[in-house]
Amino acid sequence: MARIDTARVIADLEELRSRTAGETGAERLAWGEGWRTARSILADRLDEIGIPWERDAAGNLWASVAGAQRATVAIGSHLDAVPAGGWLDGALGVLTGLEILRQVRAGRERPRLGVALVDFADEEGARFGRSLFGSSAVSGSLDPGEIDGLRNPAGESMRTLLRENGLEVSRLLDAGARRRDLAAYLELHIEQGPVLEERGLPVAPVRAVCGIERYRATVRGQTGHAGALPMATRRDAFLASADGALRVEAAARAVDGFATVGLIELEPGIATAVAGVASFVLDLRHSEPLALARLAATAERELGAAAHARGCELALERIWGIPVTTFDPALVAAATEVCATITGSRFVAVSGPGHDAVEMARHVPTAMLFAPSSGGISHSALEDTPVADLEVAMTAFAELAFAVIDGQVEGIAGGERGAAA
Amino acid sequence: MARIDTARVIADLEELRSRTAGETGAERLAWGEGWRTARSILADRLDEIGIPWERDAAGNLWASVAGAQRATVAIGSHLDAVPAGGWLDGALGVLTGLEILRQVRAGRERPRLGVALVDFADEEGARFGRSLFGSSAVSGSLDPGEIDGLRNPAGESMRTLLRENGLEVSRLLDAGARRRDLAAYLELHIEQGPVLEERGLPVAPVRAVCGIERYRATVRGQTGHAGALPMATRRDAFLASADGALRVEAAARAVDGFATVGLIELEPGIATAVAGVASFVLDLRHSEPLALARLAATAERELGAAAHARGCELALERIWGIPVTTFDPALVAAATEVCATITGSRFVAVSGPGHDAVEMARHVPTAMLFAPSSGGISHSALEDTPVADLEVAMTAFAELAFAVIDGQVEGIAGGERGAAA
Repeated sequence: MARIDTARVIADLEELRSRTAGETGAERLAWGEGWRTARSILADRLDEIGIPWERDAAGNLWASVAGAQRATVAIGSHLDAVPAGGWLDGALGVLTGLEILRQVRAGRERPRLGVALVDFADEEGARFGRSLFGSSAVSGSLDPGEIDGLRNPAGESMRTLLRENGLEVSRLLDAGARRRDLAAYLELHIEQGPVLEERGLPVAPVRAVCGIERYRATVRGQTGHAGALPMATRRDAFLASADGALRVEAAARAVDGFATVGLIELEPGIATAVAGVASFVLDLRHSEPLALARLAATAERELGAAAHARGCELALERIWGIPVTTFDPALVAAATEVCATITGSRFVAVSGPGHDAVEMARHVPTAMLFAPSSGGISHSALEDTPVADLEVAMTAFAELAFAVIDGQVEGIAGGERGAAA
Repeated sequence: MARIDTARVIADLEELRSRTAGETGAERLAWGEGWRTARSILADRLDEIGIPWERDAAGNLWASVAGAQRATVAIGSHLDAVPAGGWLDGALGVLTGLEILRQVRAGRERPRLGVALVDFADEEGARFGRSLFGSSAVSGSLDPGEIDGLRNPAGESMRTLLRENGLEVSRLLDAGARRRDLAAYLELHIEQGPVLEERGLPVAPVRAVCGIERYRATVRGQTGHAGALPMATRRDAFLASADGALRVEAAARAVDGFATVGLIELEPGIATAVAGVASFVLDLRHSEPLALARLAATAERELGAAAHARGCELALERIWGIPVTTFDPALVAAATEVCATITGSRFVAVSGPGHDAVEMARHVPTAMLFAPSSGGISHSALEDTPVADLEVAMTAFAELAFAVIDGQVEGIAGGERGAAA
C-alpha cells in the first residue's frame, strides 16, 4: 500500500524540468546556475514543510527528521546532471526522498529511526571527470590532494569553483562525520539501460554495481602506402585492433559481462596510409569480482593474440578501475520482497553505471531500486520513463524505506524480521 | 652498357638533399622555398650544360634538345615532396633525366627524336590535396574551376599561391600545348613499396597503375552506456565497422588487390559510451579494371552484411576514384627486355600510388621503371634505396630511354623493331 503521493513527486519533477532545462535537455551542471536553481527548489519545498536543511563541508544538502533512535536512514541521490541531460537521472531519487520526508513529517508519531534526505553534490563529475564527489567525501574515499590540483580543458580550477560555492578543499572530508549515525542508505534511480523495459518491469531491486577495469591499448604495427604495401605483408594496427575488439566482445558475452571500445585513434590517420599505430580505450565491467578478473585476463590475452597474428605489438596500460560493489543482503532481500509483491517478479538487477550508493555502501548497509529507462537511453534529453512506471517504482521504494525506518528489516539498526511489504 | 654517369646522378641527389632537407627529411613542399631551391639547382645544372629551359603555364619546368624529328621523348618526374619527405621520391627521376639530357647534349650527333626533361609541378598535392597538378594540366584533365576555389585548413588559397608563383588559374590548361609533339613519356621512380626489395630486384618495369575507388562509410547503430547496455542487444557501430573492415581485408587478399581503412572516427567517442556512429574511409585499389569493380561490389556487400549483423545501417558514399592506367604495351615490352638483360628477371610490377605518368598516359605512350624502396618505406626521412641498386636502375632506365630516342621501339614515332638492350 502506497503511503506517498506519487502525483506530487511527478509534479515536483515537472517543475524542476521546467525551471532547469532547455530544449536540448536538463542544464544542472554541478556548481553552476542551473544546479543552484534546482537546489533552491528543493530548499523551498523543505522550508514549506518545516524541515531544516544544511550543507555539509562537501556541499551535500542534508534534511533530517529525528527518530526515536539516534540511528538514521538516509535516502538520497543527486540533483546535478550532465550537460543536455535527462529529467530523471538523480532527480527521481531526491524528489521521491523529499516526498517520503513529507510523509514522515506529516505523521502523528515520531519515526522509529531518524530519516535524512541527502542531495549529493557533483555525482556526475561532468566538469572535472571526478564522479561521486559528494558521496565520496562522506565515505572518506575522496583524496583532497587530488581535488586541489584538478583543472579541466576549459581552464577551470576545481578549487576555485568550490571556493565560489563556499567550500574549502582542506575541509571536504569533514563531511564524513555524517556517516556515523547512518543505519542504512537507500537510493531510487533510473536504470539507464534497457533491461527492465525489456522484461516489462516498472521496478526492480539492485544487488550489485559492476566493477570496472579500464585500459588504454596501444597496438604498434608498421605504416605504409595504401597502394604499395601488399596485403599479405602488412602489419596493420587498425585491423589488429578490430580483430582484438571482436575477440574481447565474444569473451564478454560468454561470461555475461560488458566490454566496450568507445574511442580509437589511428596514426598517421590518413586515407592513403596503413595505420602504424592504433590507440583505444577498453572498458570492462562485471558484477562478480572473480568474473571481472577473469575477463580482464582473457581480454589481455586476446588483444595480444590479435596483435601478434598481424605482426603487431600490444601495450596495455590499466588506467582506472573500481571494485565490484555488493549491496547489503538483508536490504536486497527486503527490496526483492517489496518488488515481488508489486510486480510478481523476483528479478534482481545489477548496475553497470556507478552511483552515490557505491560510496555509501563502503560503510553503511545500502540498497537501490531501479525504475526502467525507455529505450535504455540516459544522459540525453530523450531520457524518459512512463509516468505509470515511475509511480509504481516510487511506491515500491517508499514501501522499502518505511520498512527500514520502522525497524522491520532484520539486521538494520536492530530491526526484527518482519513483513516488509 | 650504361651510357650515363650514374655517380654524377648520385652526387646531384646528394647535393639536392644537403640543400633542401633538414633532420626530419626533405622539405620541398610545392610552391615553397625548399621547392624553389631545388628548382634553382636543376636550372643551374641546365645552364652549365647549355640547355635552355622554361616554365609552362602550369609551372612545369621543361628543358629540351631538338632531334632529327620533331617528335620528342619526354623524361620526367617531380622535385616537390611531402613535408618531411624522402630524398628519392620524384628527385630520382628528374635528376636521372638530367643526366640523360647531359649525354644527349654531349653527343656528337643530333638524336633521332627530340628529348625533353620535365619537372612537373606539385605532384604530391601536399598543400591542397590535389595531386598530379602539373601533369594533369598538360594532359588536360585539370579543372581550373576546381583549382580556383581550393583552400586548405591553414587558410591558404591555391589561386593566391599560384599567383605568387607567377601563374594564373585561367591559363593553366595552356600547358597542354606541350603534349602535341610528344612521342613517348618515360619515368623512373622509386617503388614506395616492398615488392622489388623482397624479390631482390634493383629495377623492374611497371605495366599498370592501380585504379582507386575511395568511399566514406558511415555505420549508424545506437549509443548507450558502456555499463548499462547488455552486449546481446547492442548496436555497436565500431564493432560493426571492425567486422566489416576484416571482411573487406579478406576480399582484397583473395583477389590480390588492396583495401585500407586508414582513419576512423567514433561518436560520441568517449570511453563510457558504445559507439552510435562510426565513420571511416575505405581505399580500394587494383591493377585490373574488372577486378577493381568486383572488389568494390564485394566491399559494399560485406560492409553492409557486417552492419546488418549488428543491427546497424550502412551508408556508403563514393568520394573519389581513378581508373586503372595501363601503360603502352610496346614500351612495357621494351622495358621488360632491358630489365631482363640486366637482372635476369622478367617480373613486371604494378604501382599502387599514382604518378605523373598516369596523367601523361592519357594521350602519350608511356612507361615507368621502378627502383626498390628499402623496407617499402616512402614519404618519410627513412626513405632509402641502396646506391648500387639506384645505379642499376638508372642504367636500365637510360638504356630504355636511348632505345626510344634512337627509334628502336616499334610503334613509337615510327620506331622499328630493334634490340632495345
